Amino acid sequence: MAGNSFGQLFRITTAGESHGPGNVVIVDGVPPGIPITVEDLQVDLDRRRPGQSKIVTQRKEPDEPEILSGVFEGRTTGTSIAILIRNQDQRSKDYSDIKDKYRPGHADYTFDAKYGFRDYRGGGRSSARETTARVAAGVIAKKLIAEAFGGQVVGYVKQVGDIVADIPRPEDVTLEQVEKRPDGEPNIVRCPDLAAADRMIALIDKVRKDQDSIGGVSEIVATGIPPGLGEPVFDKIKADLAKALFSLPAVLGVEYGIGFACATMRGSENNDVFERASEGARVERPEARAPSEPEASAPGAKSSASDNGPEVSDKGQARQPSPSIATQSNRHGGMLGGITSGMPIVLRAAIKPTSSLSKKQPTVDNTGTPTTIQTKGRHDPCLLPRFVPMGEAMVAIVIADHWLRWRAQCGWAP
Amino acid sequence: MAGNSFGQLFRITTAGESHGPGNVVIVDGVPPGIPITVEDLQVDLDRRRPGQSKIVTQRKEPDEPEILSGVFEGRTTGTSIAILIRNQDQRSKDYSDIKDKYRPGHADYTFDAKYGFRDYRGGGRSSARETTARVAAGVIAKKLIAEAFGGQVVGYVKQVGDIVADIPRPEDVTLEQVEKRPDGEPNIVRCPDLAAADRMIALIDKVRKDQDSIGGVSEIVATGIPPGLGEPVFDKIKADLAKALFSLPAVLGVEYGIGFACATMRGSENNDVFERASEGARVERPEARAPSEPEASAPGAKSSASDNGPEVSDKGQARQPSPSIATQSNRHGGMLGGITSGMPIVLRAAIKPTSSLSKKQPTVDNTGTPTTIQTKGRHDPCLLPRFVPMGEAMVAIVIADHWLRWRAQCGWAP
Amino acid sequence: MAGNSFGQLFRITTAGESHGPGNVVIVDGVPPGIPITVEDLQVDLDRRRPGQSKIVTQRKEPDEPEILSGVFEGRTTGTSIAILIRNQDQRSKDYSDIKDKYRPGHADYTFDAKYGFRDYRGGGRSSARETTARVAAGVIAKKLIAEAFGGQVVGYVKQVGDIVADIPRPEDVTLEQVEKRPDGEPNIVRCPDLAAADRMIALIDKVRKDQDSIGGVSEIVATGIPPGLGEPVFDKIKADLAKALFSLPAVLGVEYGIGFACATMRGSENNDVFERASEGARVERPEARAPSEPEASAPGAKSSASDNGPEVSDKGQARQPSPSIATQSNRHGGMLGGITSGMPIVLRAAIKPTSSLSKKQPTVDNTGTPTTIQTKGRHDPCLLPRFVPMGEAMVAIVIADHWLRWRAQCGWAP
Amino acid sequence: MAGNSFGQLFRITTAGESHGPGNVVIVDGVPPGIPITVEDLQVDLDRRRPGQSKIVTQRKEPDEPEILSGVFEGRTTGTSIAILIRNQDQRSKDYSDIKDKYRPGHADYTFDAKYGFRDYRGGGRSSARETTARVAAGVIAKKLIAEAFGGQVVGYVKQVGDIVADIPRPEDVTLEQVEKRPDGEPNIVRCPDLAAADRMIALIDKVRKDQDSIGGVSEIVATGIPPGLGEPVFDKIKADLAKALFSLPAVLGVEYGIGFACATMRGSENNDVFERASEGARVERPEARAPSEPEASAPGAKSSASDNGPEVSDKGQARQPSPSIATQSNRHGGMLGGITSGMPIVLRAAIKPTSSLSKKQPTVDNTGTPTTIQTKGRHDPCLLPRFVPMGEAMVAIVIADHWLRWRAQCGWAP
Repeated sequence: MAGNSFGQLFRITTAGESHGPGNVVIVDGVPPGIPITVEDLQVDLDRRRPGQSKIVTQRKEPDEPEILSGVFEGRTTGTSIAILIRNQDQRSKDYSDIKDKYRPGHADYTFDAKYGFRDYRGGGRSSARETTARVAAGVIAKKLIAEAFGGQVVGYVKQVGDIVADIPRPEDVTLEQVEKRPDGEPNIVRCPDLAAADRMIALIDKVRKDQDSIGGVSEIVATGIPPGLGEPVFDKIKADLAKALFSLPAVLGVEYGIGFACATMRGSENNDVFERASEGARVERPEARAPSEPEASAPGAKSSASDNGPEVSDKGQARQPSPSIATQSNRHGGMLGGITSGMPIVLRAAIKPTSSLSKKQPTVDNTGTPTTIQTKGRHDPCLLPRFVPMGEAMVAIVIADHWLRWRAQCGWAP
Repeated sequence: MAGNSFGQLFRITTAGESHGPGNVVIVDGVPPGIPITVEDLQVDLDRRRPGQSKIVTQRKEPDEPEILSGVFEGRTTGTSIAILIRNQDQRSKDYSDIKDKYRPGHADYTFDAKYGFRDYRGGGRSSARETTARVAAGVIAKKLIAEAFGGQVVGYVKQVGDIVADIPRPEDVTLEQVEKRPDGEPNIVRCPDLAAADRMIALIDKVRKDQDSIGGVSEIVATGIPPGLGEPVFDKIKADLAKALFSLPAVLGVEYGIGFACATMRGSENNDVFERASEGARVERPEARAPSEPEASAPGAKSSASDNGPEVSDKGQARQPSPSIATQSNRHGGMLGGITSGMPIVLRAAIKPTSSLSKKQPTVDNTGTPTTIQTKGRHDPCLLPRFVPMGEAMVAIVIADHWLRWRAQCGWAP
Repeated sequence: MAGNSFGQLFRITTAGESHGPGNVVIVDGVPPGIPITVEDLQVDLDRRRPGQSKIVTQRKEPDEPEILSGVFEGRTTGTSIAILIRNQDQRSKDYSDIKDKYRPGHADYTFDAKYGFRDYRGGGRSSARETTARVAAGVIAKKLIAEAFGGQVVGYVKQVGDIVADIPRPEDVTLEQVEKRPDGEPNIVRCPDLAAADRMIALIDKVRKDQDSIGGVSEIVATGIPPGLGEPVFDKIKADLAKALFSLPAVLGVEYGIGFACATMRGSENNDVFERASEGARVERPEARAPSEPEASAPGAKSSASDNGPEVSDKGQARQPSPSIATQSNRHGGMLGGITSGMPIVLRAAIKPTSSLSKKQPTVDNTGTPTTIQTKGRHDPCLLPRFVPMGEAMVAIVIADHWLRWRAQCGWAP
Repeated sequence: MAGNSFGQLFRITTAGESHGPGNVVIVDGVPPGIPITVEDLQVDLDRRRPGQSKIVTQRKEPDEPEILSGVFEGRTTGTSIAILIRNQDQRSKDYSDIKDKYRPGHADYTFDAKYGFRDYRGGGRSSARETTARVAAGVIAKKLIAEAFGGQVVGYVKQVGDIVADIPRPEDVTLEQVEKRPDGEPNIVRCPDLAAADRMIALIDKVRKDQDSIGGVSEIVATGIPPGLGEPVFDKIKADLAKALFSLPAVLGVEYGIGFACATMRGSENNDVFERASEGARVERPEARAPSEPEASAPGAKSSASDNGPEVSDKGQARQPSPSIATQSNRHGGMLGGITSGMPIVLRAAIKPTSSLSKKQPTVDNTGTPTTIQTKGRHDPCLLPRFVPMGEAMVAIVIADHWLRWRAQCGWAP
């Protein structure tokens, strides 16, 4: 096992390179009966794909998924779901002149060091194209947590260069705000603070013209997450979320809640005060759970389920803490002792500036001889806008996984 | 499996609560022949234990380990190693009055939410006492990476409150500097910038007198790590290191290399330039590997090993990079594409101020009724000094694990 | 990870050697609230321990367990449970003269081949003493499946040498029949066919006097198991059960249902016919589930659980298939397509004769020089009577594991 | 995780149903540099596929694999390998009339019990079509063990009904004998005892005409396997091999070495005697390892490997047993204490008669109402001939996995 799987119960396994036939993901452990279609997958794949706006790479990839298994008559069957996304616009000649050179900031040298040789056409397995597989799997995770308890994961761009968005209540940001401006135009930089968004776009445009790139910070928020998810020691949900985000390309830092700012705080000012959840204090579930009722004739219809299923009647009904406990503030970012508190989960990831630059950079080749390199490919001047769906996907997968884990161990009492 | 194991090949599994009989760790996957003694374990356990100085909690725990298995005549046998560390100073009466109250910043509420009830005596499984097990296992990991390739892991305190140490070359900090001052006195705050250390101690002393606590940042540095460790996708070594550190109590943020500062950088200034490793540019291995040569009569002695070992003609021996590649700077923190580059690995973890405070704090009980709480136990006014060995242990375990993983898959070529 | 863990969700990790301080098991993933005491553990440890009757090894080991964690006020807390069983009667001098010789049928040579050296005092990690840890964990698994759905696992001796017990309805054998004769005397060979039992005891007595040993077959039966447990591909429950039994020492074969006899059958005579479960045809649950009701003040009491727990109301109530489907016969041994059918699970394991013999045997030493060996230790002339609790434990662990897995994925429907 | 992965280090994950678009396998953990082509995969897929002879099902499936990733210029890269095998001849109308009926001996009822509903078109995920993915992965495992140490896995049909082949030396059976008769005609029943083969073919022909089916036993032999593979406790190699074989459809029993016959043996007659391996006594490696030497310009060529590989001074090279130890007989089937002894591994699996019959059988529908069923599809009258490549694949995967595990932990000594 060489690290191509993620998750314990909601488990994804991926394969694929930037210049091979395509990328594939097998999603294992999905409960039966979740509605899922190719169109559902396409929505987030479109948010991730290249060529969607002027501020991202112009590589053309339709990223159309094919569901190979695990879905029958529009619902998951409980067996493993395989999804294939073929590559289209490979243009391998763009890369052939850099076969023996180590691109600065890339994994070329470390791949050679690890494996002894590498697929030199583009990033191979280290290319961000592998994240298509994650995003497709993330859609299924989002569906699951929405069906199960109305959970939602929304990410956005919090910072590009020194432009920091003002987002007073992260838990109030909606997917619509992230994707669309009030005038209906796409919010191409995915920052809900529109004034900041305009300045971010201008900055990205400028670095692109400079043949350069720029870093930033993305914030990912999960709402409607029940308290009690996560394990007390190694698999703290904060630890699994951090691993999930750090496993994405270009992430150099992750924090949650107050994050690094805690270093200068005193305990008396940092501790969030518990209180009985008032109507307003506790983040309301984004929407009352509205499970898509199966038709009488559909697979998974209640009648057939109750006729033939094994002897457990759990239908996911709300065991609502009574009284609900909340905190007056959320410096703890929704997690205490590695376990969700019921407050919104707020995470931030720092993304480095794209390593590939059109401008000439000094480097060495694989004999150590100094040379220069200029990557003519089409690259993102800023990774942030396309990072958002990747980050959301990974966060949703972790939450789905921990919900299944909670169900297995704690969803039942003797 | 409820998250009490960590690592794939070098794998630890722990159990134990703050007020039970003790803590135990089973370390699985350790190669045979590594020298290990109870005294080796005691060194780091002493660095972690309470009561070691005036600026940490005064709870008395000798933390003496007993090796129950897996070591024979002073060397690991290859079978699972169990280590037991009994609790001594439990004083459960300190906690009995808070049985129904939720301590702010603690896992009391989230444990109730997860399990339906909890061991209310102290933190139970969420207490930092569980880290004794990690620190003991970490000693074995440190031994392994030192034996195998001369790897070293050294941590220290980088920041307490707004006091930031000046550490121009993290890779040059030695364990001796972290533990001892030039005059031979212990460096009780574990900060190698002694001027900063004095101010940190004064600050910690002040917050203690204020019945308060303070946060900080620890930096952990791994040197002598070969390039090529880590997996390209989910198990990027940065991701596993982040999970390792986030799995420790009170960690709210992790970054490596330039970290969050990357957000404001341009690619042209952030990319580290590759070069042929000159004598000085590349961080030298801390010491030429000096494996403890087994005596002729010892188990694992070369003669017996070569007589009885299995017939495998390992071909991947001693693949020495020729020429070595290094980078002129280390903003990438020793990892590119999730794989080690051979440059020092530099990580930072943000630690929140201790949640337990002697001063009275408002909270609720488990019926949601407002009340106050005052934790009379003996608590650390600042977690940083004792965090250092915990952070080192987790980093060493990840590196040991990935070295074994590299050996399994890539240490041989057809 | 070197194979010292077993199970996915109900997961045990063990350590310990025959001549070290003791054996330890960490049981992870146990639901909170299961009642468990040291006395519960002792019952099966006593069934496994040496010295319990004249036909087993006379080594004296009280095998008294200490619970180190994970149990609070008599109930599991949901955190990892560590159990320590110290060794007492080690007598390492019994073994010191065989330090360099390879005992026939033992793992001495293969340990040397694997690790390069070995703990030569007795079997070390390959000794059957490691099964104390499994048996202790098995008690918890048995408790869980009894609490959850009234499941029971009962094993017995089916064959010793050429003496085959006549057990017309395996599902009707009770633990009482296995342990006690009608006159109240212990059933020391654990065969419920008492006529066969008498002949087995005589045979074992004879081979012991001949300084020899004898093989046999154990049958393990699980009743009250709901249909639907097991995974359709690699983790078929038959596959996990087979691995569980083959992981025990001395097992050379495993079969279920009709087993190897299927080779000569035609499909038309082998297929079991489905039918609506009549009152009698379907194996009734051994006893209506009688969960031990928690006292009002106990941890895990319903009131507190429902007050503070997360939002799921699953209490393990019987979702009874309506109508129940059964089969007229049970050649399929309770599993179809790797998934339980609700019929009794019937397994058989073939156990080889003990390899250690008091009589002199030819062998070689570790230089390949021919020599002879005579193992003076106290050995079982027949492994079968003590195998029964080991086999039961492993079967119970697999069923507990798959029940948790089923709950996680399928215990809920959108 | 719902059981769609197998193996620890050499790890396969599969997806696919009988009537969906196809089957896919992701193979993770394969060392870089192993030569592999689509043609290699096709060889074993052709041995497994339907329609290859008159005694197997006439369903037409070319089973042509597409390699989607992980192979570059004819060699494995070390990244995950995805292989897609599309379904062609689905004919779902053959099955539509049995939508609500439970086929005897099939997983229809147990799937309904597990998931609440099922893909009723054929077996879905429980169909033997999923084994295409295993067989493709098995080819890679066979390549690996052949490259690494000259290991070979050969299976054949040992028994059909009451016809038992006479195979005096299992380790001498060659792939050629299994596949071809001396006259060059295919050995369609895959039994190397040609007299028995003729009778088996006649018997299978007869049961087919009777609209019935027949069971049998397959023997799988692995030769050239180094001593020392396998783990001493739960992951005994016998346990993993048993799980591997039991995870295949229709397997009701597995044994190795003397197997169930051990029940009637005495220790003095069962123990195999160790001896210094004479030239002839020890099974010679089938062929001296002849690794395909990489061309100078190929990826993975030695020069580049030694130039760029990580700096690890692997010390465990070529530990050649001196003198070699063997046993005079092989009742232990090549495994002692769960670890390979260097003698041939000999396994047997009992395969039940095909459950699908053309003749009418009584059953019930999913309301429990009695009915009859007649499966008109094209089914194998005997599963044995096509089982052989499936069994070989699973055995090769286990051996490859344990070799990588051995390398990780024990292939190096301090």
